[in-house]
Amino acid sequence: MSKGVLGTNVVTQVGIIVKNIEHTSQTFADFFGVEKPPANLTDTLDKAQTKYNGSPTEARAKLAFFDMGQIQIELIEPDENPSTWREYLDTHGEGVHHIAFVVKDMKGTVAKLESRNMPLIQKGEYTGGRYAYMDTFGDLKVILELLENDNGGGEGN
Amino acid sequence: MSKGVLGTNVVTQVGIIVKNIEHTSQTFADFFGVEKPPANLTDTLDKAQTKYNGSPTEARAKLAFFDMGQIQIELIEPDENPSTWREYLDTHGEGVHHIAFVVKDMKGTVAKLESRNMPLIQKGEYTGGRYAYMDTFGDLKVILELLENDNGGGEGN
Repeated sequence: MSKGVLGTNVVTQVGIIVKNIEHTSQTFADFFGVEKPPANLTDTLDKAQTKYNGSPTEARAKLAFFDMGQIQIELIEPDENPSTWREYLDTHGEGVHHIAFVVKDMKGTVAKLESRNMPLIQKGEYTGGRYAYMDTFGDLKVILELLENDNGGGEGN
Repeated sequence: MSKGVLGTNVVTQVGIIVKNIEHTSQTFADFFGVEKPPANLTDTLDKAQTKYNGSPTEARAKLAFFDMGQIQIELIEPDENPSTWREYLDTHGEGVHHIAFVVKDMKGTVAKLESRNMPLIQKGEYTGGRYAYMDTFGDLKVILELLENDNGGGEGN
């Protein structure tokens, strides 16, 4: 069933930028009474093919995922290289960076958003799928992340 | 089953502060292919018993709720009176203000958080329940809203 521009309105993830993922993951785990998940580093440029504002970037981030009911909370610790993660930390400080949706047609969905003046901010590959952050802030007051998984599932960056 | 400090880790809501709820609600509705929900004003002080930073406040807000999968997105347009909503808009601008959890024992849960140096920011009543915003930002990098509903359900401010 087609639902609006994305084909879905199901939020799968809330992404939070943090300075110190080990510390904040432990705090989350203690607070919510769950195990501390591993903090995994995103892939290097050759594999992740990360592009930020149209240019390749060496930027990587440490990611940790918490299952919080039907959504995940993703903690993200950026490195010093240029990325939407680093930019957010430098300009806003820690806090909620994006909400995520799993889409079926990444290329077509990115094109649809761009035609509505919601440009691509950053994109990259991860094992089993790819992501795109779209600049929807002016319209929706939050950045959207699109996730396309080769197996159709809900996990992702 | 007890899960951590809150007794739950199920996120039920993401709250976004906006300047113009009519405009942003229409944009959300168009984007996600759903009907524009009504924007309802919170109750007056006599009924809502709103307290912000320990003092009663006349503050009210217009609220609109979107069902986005298993969570709601709540749009919040504050009035000019002192509130966590107004403070957020004045200091951060528009954006994600909180994530919400439904709790069973509001009084006990607020006390537990306060004992962990997570003070109450604002609280109030709505038809069928009550809410409390807790200053968890330093630890969890996001404000938590606690919702207690007299019928045990998930709707709320």
